Amino acid sequence: MSEKLISRSEDFNEWYNSLVLKADLADYGPVRGTMIVKPYGWALWENIQQALDRRFKATGHVNAGFPMFIPYSFLQREAKHVEGFSPQLAVVTHGGGQELEEPIIVRPTSETLIGHAFAKWVNSYRDLPILLNLWNSVVRWELRTKLFLRTSEFYWQEGHTAHATLTEAEFETRQMLDIYTDFAVNEAAVPVIPGEKSPMERFAGADRTLTIEAMMGDSRALQSGTSHNLGQNFAKAFDIKYLDQNNELQYCWTTSWGLSTRFIGAIIMVHGDDQGLILPPRLAPFQTVIVPIYKNDEEKGPVLEATERISRELSANGIRVKVDQRENLSPGFKFNDWELRGVPTRTEIGPKDVAKNSVALARRDQPGREGKQFVSQGGLAATVQALLDSIQQGMLDRAQRFRDENIHSAQNYDEFTEVIKTGFARVWWAGDDTAEQRVQEETKATLRCFPLEQPGGTGRCFYTGKPANQVAIFARAY
Amino acid sequence: MSEKLISRSEDFNEWYNSLVLKADLADYGPVRGTMIVKPYGWALWENIQQALDRRFKATGHVNAGFPMFIPYSFLQREAKHVEGFSPQLAVVTHGGGQELEEPIIVRPTSETLIGHAFAKWVNSYRDLPILLNLWNSVVRWELRTKLFLRTSEFYWQEGHTAHATLTEAEFETRQMLDIYTDFAVNEAAVPVIPGEKSPMERFAGADRTLTIEAMMGDSRALQSGTSHNLGQNFAKAFDIKYLDQNNELQYCWTTSWGLSTRFIGAIIMVHGDDQGLILPPRLAPFQTVIVPIYKNDEEKGPVLEATERISRELSANGIRVKVDQRENLSPGFKFNDWELRGVPTRTEIGPKDVAKNSVALARRDQPGREGKQFVSQGGLAATVQALLDSIQQGMLDRAQRFRDENIHSAQNYDEFTEVIKTGFARVWWAGDDTAEQRVQEETKATLRCFPLEQPGGTGRCFYTGKPANQVAIFARAY
Repeated sequence: MSEKLISRSEDFNEWYNSLVLKADLADYGPVRGTMIVKPYGWALWENIQQALDRRFKATGHVNAGFPMFIPYSFLQREAKHVEGFSPQLAVVTHGGGQELEEPIIVRPTSETLIGHAFAKWVNSYRDLPILLNLWNSVVRWELRTKLFLRTSEFYWQEGHTAHATLTEAEFETRQMLDIYTDFAVNEAAVPVIPGEKSPMERFAGADRTLTIEAMMGDSRALQSGTSHNLGQNFAKAFDIKYLDQNNELQYCWTTSWGLSTRFIGAIIMVHGDDQGLILPPRLAPFQTVIVPIYKNDEEKGPVLEATERISRELSANGIRVKVDQRENLSPGFKFNDWELRGVPTRTEIGPKDVAKNSVALARRDQPGREGKQFVSQGGLAATVQALLDSIQQGMLDRAQRFRDENIHSAQNYDEFTEVIKTGFARVWWAGDDTAEQRVQEETKATLRCFPLEQPGGTGRCFYTGKPANQVAIFARAY
Repeated sequence: MSEKLISRSEDFNEWYNSLVLKADLADYGPVRGTMIVKPYGWALWENIQQALDRRFKATGHVNAGFPMFIPYSFLQREAKHVEGFSPQLAVVTHGGGQELEEPIIVRPTSETLIGHAFAKWVNSYRDLPILLNLWNSVVRWELRTKLFLRTSEFYWQEGHTAHATLTEAEFETRQMLDIYTDFAVNEAAVPVIPGEKSPMERFAGADRTLTIEAMMGDSRALQSGTSHNLGQNFAKAFDIKYLDQNNELQYCWTTSWGLSTRFIGAIIMVHGDDQGLILPPRLAPFQTVIVPIYKNDEEKGPVLEATERISRELSANGIRVKVDQRENLSPGFKFNDWELRGVPTRTEIGPKDVAKNSVALARRDQPGREGKQFVSQGGLAATVQALLDSIQQGMLDRAQRFRDENIHSAQNYDEFTEVIKTGFARVWWAGDDTAEQRVQEETKATLRCFPLEQPGGTGRCFYTGKPANQVAIFARAY
């Protein structure tokens, strides 16, 4: 904690890895590829969960709990699904001291279990839609761990819905992408590009995959949430049928959508700086840390009394407060420590503040003197709340500016390879899977998405030279 | 849903099994022993989680996320722990298409992982106490499934703490038992007997296990939550040491404590009746269901308008409301359906109610006419809230009466075998493990606990005839 953090510009990758550990967000588990989310990281995840859960419930979704174990045979029922997930499976072969007759897999995702259950639960059009969400963890075997971004087990939510018509399924797929976008922008201050994946990058078993793509501080892309229209693929594989109003049997249309602890990686990499994390106020576990400052017992009494009073007042006004009363550490150490952990504001209370009925209020996103002001204790909750709102907006503005400055058009292959070194390339695209694969092999850049917002008209594909009617975003990605 | 439920007195076991399915609480998963918690059951679990989480956080605990995978070798470090859990393990032998060098187990409980992490995190007395809680699911292989009571995977919370002294660990163990007791009594209206387990029934690896034991509607016992003082057993197995204030290395003292979805089984079996569930208002997903009643379109408009207005008013006052607007079902069917699902109150609104500014308000715990009253729409939220409070208290009183009527003393073995057929036996006990084992084999009754509340003095052990200084509760148990 006391060693200096490596600077972000010097080695972004190493900065990230050490920051996750130093800020006490997470640690490695003993089984290769696994992650321990420490209390500070988990509190951040709980705030993310609440922000999403509120939105899911407001749009009629309900939560449920599905088993972590899936019969291996289930996976095989949907051809693309098994092809996509087979290389990543964890397989249970023994239970209760016996070898199992059929191997069981630990869920990499739950479409197959859901398909099995929906087939049982759906009979008539009156049973539709089913709008479910699960908060759980899933397992996809990984050899190269990167905390939050790539671990064998990760936490997420997976939504699963069944509908009577394609139109409804398409509406749902888009609605959930909009919810992810709203969450990313307005809660996490992460400006994302909502768009559609190319066929090659689709979820294994989906007809259509929508995505939100974010630009990290090193200008690489992170896929931050996806929403899939599964068509009738799983309905046919699991026989999810309903009797329509004409008493005819129809296959359902299903969707699934997920956002994971990976998003914590996005928050770190979009907002963090050389001093450490900068957490968006709306999601931060602590929105202000109060550091009492005193030199002797005479000063200590009144300072701690004011600290206690102010802490109570801020909490009563809905501000998440941490009081740092650690005895053996200097104020300077504490300032650095909480800056590293990204607490959006710091409230300092010393003997002079007690005398003047003031506090020193520092904002994390503007280090040093310029981010510090002396304000009255009167109406402090409102002052802090206004500052938090301003920080939240400032963080979004800064991230958006950075993103926009690092998206460039490219007319041809040479421009493309240049642009891709330091940012996103925005290009007309008319290539097929093979062309897309080749661009990836040659440049390490992948087709992130076709943004929902398109310029319209047509252009010339930068790679194939063919006429194109869609613009795509390419980038090197995590 | 429409078939009649088997009566509770006729076949308690079958009543339970079919009620769980019919009330839409849970369903069987495709892998033997697994459970799907359906949205209605999950909403109940979420309310249980919130009631507990609030209490955990108020006593300084923080949540975290630990991996589901544990190296098999970890389990072997604590001799009793591995002995206790080995027969129940699910073992992962393949990952990412490869056979693993060391088999991995899916956590049956996390003391070993926690021990490993605590050893890394604790250095000085200043790092103590560590007060963690995890919300997750664990796997203990089961062949005979009973939903909520016995499944291979179940949901729970597991608390894990580390302390500098035995006294603090002992305080924590008892504090968490008190929190479970408070939760059971004041949220779930389940009167429990807090007590200590005999050495034979202790958690594998604990020095002391405290428990809350509840009496089900068939007078059998259900262990409903446990709190363990683990002494220094795991500290020594995992080398969790700290430097004390004299700069000397000391082993920590650790505890663990858990309450699971099993508690949903307790709520069902303590409160349910021939009509179905009766959910305690404080935990019920819906506290009142509004059933609009109309015969034609002329009546429908004003009735639905009043329904909408009343629903909004009740929700705004913090009451959890469900409006049943299903078109194709009769009011009578809906009444039965929501009685089966145990919604504590029902609000009926018909054309006459609209005219008279009234509603019919029925309480679930008093079926038929006597439980139904006509009340004004004015101040309805307060009326409903008062009724909910009265139901909550009435449910606790009824359960407590039933429990007290079915606990009997026994002076000798004959009395004991008689008492145990229909209730709990409260007896002086001075037997050892062998005697306890023999009672169990002969009578199927197990020593549930030594209640914390003891009469004092001494008596004569009903089984061994020896002088005894403790009273124990024996019962047939789930």
